Amino acid sequence: MGQTATQTKWVYLFKEGSKDLRDLLGGKGAGVAEMTRAGMPVPPGLTITTEACRQYYADGRKFPKGLWEQVTEALKEVEQQAGKGFGDAANPLLVSVRSGAKFSMPGMMDTVLNLGLNQATLTGLQRLTGDERFALDAYRRFIQMFGKIVKGIEGELFEDALSGAKKLAGVKTDPELKPKELREVVEAFKGLYKKHTHEAFPEDPLEQLRAAINAVFSSWNTERAVAYRRAEKIPDDLGTAVNVQTMVFGNMGDGSGTGVAFTRNPITGAKELYGDYLRNAQGEDVVAGIRDTEPISGLKKHNPEVYRQFQDYAEKLEKHYRDVQDLEFTIERGKLYMLQTRNAKRTGEAAVRIAVAMEGEGLVSREEAVARVEPRQLEQLLHPRVDPQANAKPIGKGVPASPGAATGQAVFDPDTAEEWGKEGKAVILVRVETNPSDVHGMIAAKGILTSTGGTASHAALVARGMGRPCVVGANQIDVDLRERKFSSNGTVVKQGDTITIDGTNGAVYSGQVKTIEPKPSADQKTLLGWADAIRRLQVWANADYPRDAEKARENGAQGIGLCRTEHMFMEEERLPIVQAMILADSTKEREKQLEKLLPVQRSDFEGIFKAMHGLPVVIRLIDPPLHEFLPNFEALLVEATELRIKNPKSPKLKKVQRLLDRVEQLREANPMLGLRGCRLSILFPEITRMQVRAIMEAACNLKKKGVDARPEIMIPLVGHVNELRFVKHELEPVARQVQKEKGVEVEYKFGTMIEIPRAALTASEIAREAQFFSFGTNDLTQTTFGFSRDDAEGKFIGRYVEQKILPQNPFETLDRNGVGRLMAIAVDEGRQTRPDLEVGICGEHGGDPDSIQLCHELGLDYVSCSPYRVPVARLAAAQAVVAEGSTTK
Amino acid sequence: MGQTATQTKWVYLFKEGSKDLRDLLGGKGAGVAEMTRAGMPVPPGLTITTEACRQYYADGRKFPKGLWEQVTEALKEVEQQAGKGFGDAANPLLVSVRSGAKFSMPGMMDTVLNLGLNQATLTGLQRLTGDERFALDAYRRFIQMFGKIVKGIEGELFEDALSGAKKLAGVKTDPELKPKELREVVEAFKGLYKKHTHEAFPEDPLEQLRAAINAVFSSWNTERAVAYRRAEKIPDDLGTAVNVQTMVFGNMGDGSGTGVAFTRNPITGAKELYGDYLRNAQGEDVVAGIRDTEPISGLKKHNPEVYRQFQDYAEKLEKHYRDVQDLEFTIERGKLYMLQTRNAKRTGEAAVRIAVAMEGEGLVSREEAVARVEPRQLEQLLHPRVDPQANAKPIGKGVPASPGAATGQAVFDPDTAEEWGKEGKAVILVRVETNPSDVHGMIAAKGILTSTGGTASHAALVARGMGRPCVVGANQIDVDLRERKFSSNGTVVKQGDTITIDGTNGAVYSGQVKTIEPKPSADQKTLLGWADAIRRLQVWANADYPRDAEKARENGAQGIGLCRTEHMFMEEERLPIVQAMILADSTKEREKQLEKLLPVQRSDFEGIFKAMHGLPVVIRLIDPPLHEFLPNFEALLVEATELRIKNPKSPKLKKVQRLLDRVEQLREANPMLGLRGCRLSILFPEITRMQVRAIMEAACNLKKKGVDARPEIMIPLVGHVNELRFVKHELEPVARQVQKEKGVEVEYKFGTMIEIPRAALTASEIAREAQFFSFGTNDLTQTTFGFSRDDAEGKFIGRYVEQKILPQNPFETLDRNGVGRLMAIAVDEGRQTRPDLEVGICGEHGGDPDSIQLCHELGLDYVSCSPYRVPVARLAAAQAVVAEGSTTK
Repeated sequence: MGQTATQTKWVYLFKEGSKDLRDLLGGKGAGVAEMTRAGMPVPPGLTITTEACRQYYADGRKFPKGLWEQVTEALKEVEQQAGKGFGDAANPLLVSVRSGAKFSMPGMMDTVLNLGLNQATLTGLQRLTGDERFALDAYRRFIQMFGKIVKGIEGELFEDALSGAKKLAGVKTDPELKPKELREVVEAFKGLYKKHTHEAFPEDPLEQLRAAINAVFSSWNTERAVAYRRAEKIPDDLGTAVNVQTMVFGNMGDGSGTGVAFTRNPITGAKELYGDYLRNAQGEDVVAGIRDTEPISGLKKHNPEVYRQFQDYAEKLEKHYRDVQDLEFTIERGKLYMLQTRNAKRTGEAAVRIAVAMEGEGLVSREEAVARVEPRQLEQLLHPRVDPQANAKPIGKGVPASPGAATGQAVFDPDTAEEWGKEGKAVILVRVETNPSDVHGMIAAKGILTSTGGTASHAALVARGMGRPCVVGANQIDVDLRERKFSSNGTVVKQGDTITIDGTNGAVYSGQVKTIEPKPSADQKTLLGWADAIRRLQVWANADYPRDAEKARENGAQGIGLCRTEHMFMEEERLPIVQAMILADSTKEREKQLEKLLPVQRSDFEGIFKAMHGLPVVIRLIDPPLHEFLPNFEALLVEATELRIKNPKSPKLKKVQRLLDRVEQLREANPMLGLRGCRLSILFPEITRMQVRAIMEAACNLKKKGVDARPEIMIPLVGHVNELRFVKHELEPVARQVQKEKGVEVEYKFGTMIEIPRAALTASEIAREAQFFSFGTNDLTQTTFGFSRDDAEGKFIGRYVEQKILPQNPFETLDRNGVGRLMAIAVDEGRQTRPDLEVGICGEHGGDPDSIQLCHELGLDYVSCSPYRVPVARLAAAQAVVAEGSTTK
Repeated sequence: MGQTATQTKWVYLFKEGSKDLRDLLGGKGAGVAEMTRAGMPVPPGLTITTEACRQYYADGRKFPKGLWEQVTEALKEVEQQAGKGFGDAANPLLVSVRSGAKFSMPGMMDTVLNLGLNQATLTGLQRLTGDERFALDAYRRFIQMFGKIVKGIEGELFEDALSGAKKLAGVKTDPELKPKELREVVEAFKGLYKKHTHEAFPEDPLEQLRAAINAVFSSWNTERAVAYRRAEKIPDDLGTAVNVQTMVFGNMGDGSGTGVAFTRNPITGAKELYGDYLRNAQGEDVVAGIRDTEPISGLKKHNPEVYRQFQDYAEKLEKHYRDVQDLEFTIERGKLYMLQTRNAKRTGEAAVRIAVAMEGEGLVSREEAVARVEPRQLEQLLHPRVDPQANAKPIGKGVPASPGAATGQAVFDPDTAEEWGKEGKAVILVRVETNPSDVHGMIAAKGILTSTGGTASHAALVARGMGRPCVVGANQIDVDLRERKFSSNGTVVKQGDTITIDGTNGAVYSGQVKTIEPKPSADQKTLLGWADAIRRLQVWANADYPRDAEKARENGAQGIGLCRTEHMFMEEERLPIVQAMILADSTKEREKQLEKLLPVQRSDFEGIFKAMHGLPVVIRLIDPPLHEFLPNFEALLVEATELRIKNPKSPKLKKVQRLLDRVEQLREANPMLGLRGCRLSILFPEITRMQVRAIMEAACNLKKKGVDARPEIMIPLVGHVNELRFVKHELEPVARQVQKEKGVEVEYKFGTMIEIPRAALTASEIAREAQFFSFGTNDLTQTTFGFSRDDAEGKFIGRYVEQKILPQNPFETLDRNGVGRLMAIAVDEGRQTRPDLEVGICGEHGGDPDSIQLCHELGLDYVSCSPYRVPVARLAAAQAVVAEGSTTK
């Protein structure tokens, strides 16, 4: 190529590129380059770099300097390779023009085919192919695509004109149109073109090319491309490459054809060529699904020689790329052309099977195999899901908040849910929103559906913790709690009617829909086994109940990182005792109520310790503000107001008023930052003294029975070392006393949650008093950002992510620069004080793969997540090791 | 002294000590040592070190090893110097035993005098003095003091026995008791002693001494000593020294006497010996105020020679210590003894006058003079205060929330306050608590009194900002808003009755009480001038109104560090427009209301810019959550409920319900962490666009009139650089557009508040977009600690400080380790990105001397505080320079 040394190289011939230039040439460009280099039959072409696209935008949507010159120069080479001339009426070169970004972005821009046709080359094409109809059809397709894609003319206008012509000719399908009629269609299309662009359809092939390249660059920033990138977390500043490639035609009779094929089955992962073949057709016909395709094996029948050749290329490409390939090919009059190769998308099931198989075949190492399965693919396999074969139509759609599908009878209040649940009925709890007083109903339900809220609503958080399928924010659903029914898009569902929800995609169905149950395959176990051998991070689970702890252990959890004691307080038979305890006028009265709670708490802990025999269990002492256990303030206010008017002398008014006063006293301006966590322990030490007694009694009782209980007592919301010192000073004597009473010794630790910026900033002091740290990243994110999650997620975080003010929702993926920096300070300085400090994370981020990566980098000892996410976390922890390029082997 | 080298030196003879050993010998011990070294007549004695006291506690309240041996050995030296023997019946040495901590702690422990008396030495004393009555009286006093102070016997028991003896003898005063009767008193006292201690009064002087030393050590941790230290911020682990000193007697006839004197007048600062003298008396009589003293000049009349000698010593000591001395002396039969010298406590007025005078006399440098005046002493001089001479009795007492005294008619709602204020009446606004909708009434009032709340309540914050005297949390006051009255300790105050409040000490008086107006003295101006020359930190002020800005400038402010725009929204005539703006259904409707606000805001800004001609004015764009401008949710809920029952068809119900729905929509779980600050600007850019237009129009208009306006536009609550980038992108075009419209250019800056931990942690990124940082340490403290100030101060911070979980209230004094660390990160990393970054603080800490010290250390450019605290901040900023030992000179 003749450009001077000072000029940027904007254009690569296929033969100049390689798979290593993917950043510059895009996925498609790198793929054809690689195949060209491997000597496979690729129609010659050129690729304009992504850098050119970036420069195009930097220059205010202008071709960068030298680009066009390089394109025309490269085109000359392509002409030579193809043995045809661009615009040469005698032997015309036709090209396709396609976008090709680094990451596949399906549907970003449609392809323009047959570019280079005009009145003159049309005649040449007719002559060369000896097929007038074919040539005319190619021309009308080109005008249509160019008009629609390059000039933005509505596609339907062309379709209408075409169907008009068919009606006029009295035929039903395109192929029935005769050349004369097609010529009229061509004229009609040109007329349409002129009407909308106020200029004639360009005759000059170079002018056509220039406009098409410009259109591809522009397509990078269409709304749908931007939306796709946001969903897939693809950066906006990559730009797209443009591929200009010699046309080959699969629609030149029965000796021609086109197809797409995968080197292995992308649904099941089976090792077999898998794909579609269409005789006498162009690639776009396969994609559009206009005609019924036959399986790739069809090719074997029709043309065994070409099939064998294709099979050979497929095998080579898979070996070359060491991954399953997604291939496009065309056969023009018996000659096979390879048009594209790229790594194949696949289902979770296939991903696991392929990764394990390829390791067996020696294609990839165990580390690579582990890195090949995306955590979210693995997650698909862990939950029941609605059978896509069932083809059920949803009656509504919400935010998928906790994965999995569930079927049951709709109920509209937690008490009914619990009652029916006890009777053995499967129920789905339907609410406008949920709050802590619904928890007993949520436990009893198979799934939860709310008409409001987002992924961080109470319903979503609790459901994920329990592994209950959950759909929230289904706002087409109009819930009438009083009438116990909801209506959605015309369907009315009453209490007792059966519904199905799919928490993986947010769909809501009326009636029972067939679901597929998850079953861990042998391959899955093998893969997770490898992950376990590779990862350095331990994976623990958050579990409040023995059944959750059992599930966690079954899924491979190596400890319980967070057992919240307050959910235990919420269960139906306990709540009145808890309320009496809170409303007590004196410490003595409070202690009386606490005595009633002691045996209940102890038995909870015994269950969890038993399930986790030999493994650590981190138990967090009471954390939420006390008013969360009391009736709602506003409801009480309305009740009191009503009573005051209707029945001012009723004794009930007095009672309600008294309760109202107490709730008002406890209520706070900002409960998130108020009297909770260790602050409660400091003001009401009797509550946590009871809890520590219950923990230690449970541990000692079990020890006597041969169960190895390892309690780690976690004091939440510490911001100053003195808080921890004060609370430990209250609680350590209780722990010692219980052991003395029981006559056994138990291994136990005292530690704290790091969930306040000040705790991280003064970790070196706090580590003097804490044997372990556990990052409570939900609250740490709230305080570090100054975001109240309850308020922020609904009101502005969505907007922030949309407008790219935040790269992602920091409650889903840990914020590296802010929260992550605080964590780094805490880990480093905490360990300086106490080298054997145990450090983990129990915030919801503990189950998020990107966050797990950060935890690995920070040197945490473990991540703790929902029992149902443990396998995902095991995989992600191993991938973090692979990513840093240093495995444990 | 004979102790071996390996033993700690617990005991110093007076002649061995010096003023440099104050840590070890305490203030008193160092003082007598210094006077001894200077050759002044000090009765010989010894000092047991503070280290011995610390060791005493470390050993579980036991005398450290070797202490007693060293005491007895030193005592031998004292005997030699005094020429008397301890327990020597022929020539008895009597001693006083006193505590002496590093910092004076009045009332920590009373002195034990005359120790060493017993039956045998009593006889010796009688013989030596030839005064049987004197000796017996000394003995009875000793038994009484020893019994009370060392053994904890109730003092009244002794007093009762003594008055019984007087009644029996038929006399009225002690001196009238005859020796025989005194002997009976001694016996009675010994009986009392035995009854309460179950042992005989100790005859052995060494045993007496040992017990007395033990009692002094113990006195370090009495409740009242601990409470005093907490109030004065004296560390608990210093320990006290013990002084054992030869007794001299001022009560040996008219040639004897005793007194206390200051080398300058501690009330006015005048250069004159000032003090009290009492003939024929012991020191305790002066302190106890039993007998009327004469001024020190009395001594001159009675004994000019001794007076001259004393004057000479006083002068020498003042020069020696280079500070005003507080002296104790005794004259025994014509011989002057110096008993104590220490730096004198003084009033604010005296402190200023003395500091300036001493600089003039060449005694101290300007830096020292500046360091000599405590900021809180200066503050006394800046506010009117209740005249202590008036001897008024308060009817109630609350928390002093904003200093100064104010008299006015009580009113109970803000509208009346405003109305009466406009009529020229002085009013005091009395409320249970205040909220933003009271602000117009607070502006109109001379003072504010609330029955609830703490130093961080809304009333306190706003009042301090405005410099209005304010008393909050006066909980004996029972406010009846409906009846417009309050009652307090039996006094009923109705609307219109005159009351006086003193925000400096929290007192509430019925009626008018005489107050003293502040007048800056020439000395004060001189001292502050020196401070200005020394300090590196600039002092700016927080001012929301032109009148505050004027006051600030008058007090020496070099800029406005925080002008909050939302208070402007709260004023009566504007609130309805603001509410309409918030309740607007569309952006268009909102913009219509904003147009009405534009001229009002512009004129506010014009006023402030005019006042601050040539100086920077930092204006914060709208910050609080919008619901703060709307009616209270609960009140609306009650109203709607009432209407629903009483008049369900009324159109008013519809209106109220609509408003209720909107308020509910805006209401947040944690408003502190919700939709406020720059988040508002991002969701409703039209509001801040209007504000920036108002700012720039004001600045441009003034520029044309020759006023140099320097707006600095502050975007609050930024946590991520993209927020700032987004908002600036909205606002910068407005700023440019206004200048273009007006045809003038104005110097302006865009910057941000650092009040979210993440902002500090990512300061290097944020500084790319911000020309200035201003630490909003109120919110930064809230988020760093996870404390909601509204909730925490009332509910647990008090308890935390009491129980020493926190060393101080972090909302009053900056927390060094947490918040301070974040500030250090922000300053250092922000300046790395932008070396000329302007950094200040506008949180309330900006007026707190300890926090100013930290700001100086961190290298801030300025502190900004209430206009009324500017002089205090100027002084504190200079003291920070002096403290680091490097002045600008």
